[in-house]
Amino acid sequence: MTPDALNRLVAQLSKLPGIGEKTAQRLAFHVLRSPPEYARNLSQALLEVVDKVRLCPRCFSLTDGPTDQPCGFCTDTRRDDKVLCVVEGIADELAIERTREFRGRYHVLHGVLSPLEGVGPDQLRIRELLVRLESGAIDEVIVATNPDVEGEATALYLVRLLRPMGIKVTRLAQGIPMGGDLEYADQATLARALAARRDLEPRVRVR
Amino acid sequence: MTPDALNRLVAQLSKLPGIGEKTAQRLAFHVLRSPPEYARNLSQALLEVVDKVRLCPRCFSLTDGPTDQPCGFCTDTRRDDKVLCVVEGIADELAIERTREFRGRYHVLHGVLSPLEGVGPDQLRIRELLVRLESGAIDEVIVATNPDVEGEATALYLVRLLRPMGIKVTRLAQGIPMGGDLEYADQATLARALAARRDLEPRVRVR
Repeated sequence: MTPDALNRLVAQLSKLPGIGEKTAQRLAFHVLRSPPEYARNLSQALLEVVDKVRLCPRCFSLTDGPTDQPCGFCTDTRRDDKVLCVVEGIADELAIERTREFRGRYHVLHGVLSPLEGVGPDQLRIRELLVRLESGAIDEVIVATNPDVEGEATALYLVRLLRPMGIKVTRLAQGIPMGGDLEYADQATLARALAARRDLEPRVRVR
Repeated sequence: MTPDALNRLVAQLSKLPGIGEKTAQRLAFHVLRSPPEYARNLSQALLEVVDKVRLCPRCFSLTDGPTDQPCGFCTDTRRDDKVLCVVEGIADELAIERTREFRGRYHVLHGVLSPLEGVGPDQLRIRELLVRLESGAIDEVIVATNPDVEGEATALYLVRLLRPMGIKVTRLAQGIPMGGDLEYADQATLARALAARRDLEPRVRVR
């Protein structure tokens, strides 16, 4: 008994990740209760994002600059060309950027190796990574894939591929998170933290 | 460092209820990863819903029928004109409809009395409810507002308003939900269930 236009909106919203049919209905009601400008603005923003946003041809970050031009990360002259951080996706890149601790360049793989889901090296931006590394300007590659099964496998694959090229390959440290509680840390994390324990030097301090 | 078009989409999505900035960003990335048709379909569905869907001039349900025409609930000749179910919102109406137990008409208040939020009887569709009741065709009004403070206050207000008109006013039964557990039922619910206990007759059975 609900209007077709409403059903169509609910169906489209239900396709979003983590949005079930009940939530989609609640969102659709919110849109209906809001001033019509809201629906128009959201509608416009959706069109613009697919029309304007594309991947940087060098690092595969998102950009809305001129076609075939590298993104802001790649063209920023204040960033260090010698260090390259390899991430699974854009969200990871933004998370690292928010730390304000990394001033090198990025390379976004857009996925991780996952044989079960049919994702091999050719489905990721690994070929393009190798092309960038062949320039010889990069001294260190930080493999910042997630510390889960696929992320670890991808990191291992990259290490085996890049070390023979004479490039220093590093991985983000694994251990107890800041503010974490040893009592509640899982065994794997605690074991890693123990194995990777480090000398307590005066320069190793909480910032 | 994220493209403006992406920031604008994230800002618009963050305005949806229950969607924080991180979730909005995740949804925006999903839109970007999906085929562009998805963004266009969702964009179109948003425009259609605000252009076509309006409130029924009689019961204030949603309809996309011709302007000033009553909705499907109001015009369905198989429904009973004598029983009217008053609900807070469209979602409540649809929940009751899903039971397939109610075949009367509806009236949607679009809110509940809430003096703290400045919602009085004039902000709800109560005047229009009284106009419908004056026709004399309605024998019973089921006040199906939620069993919370505002819903109960609204129900009490309606009872006091409608009883003097000689109309039977009923309220949805309150008690232990089906499949519920007495041990974990809250005191208020259990107290209501006790107070409203009923004779166990053969016809009172689980359907």
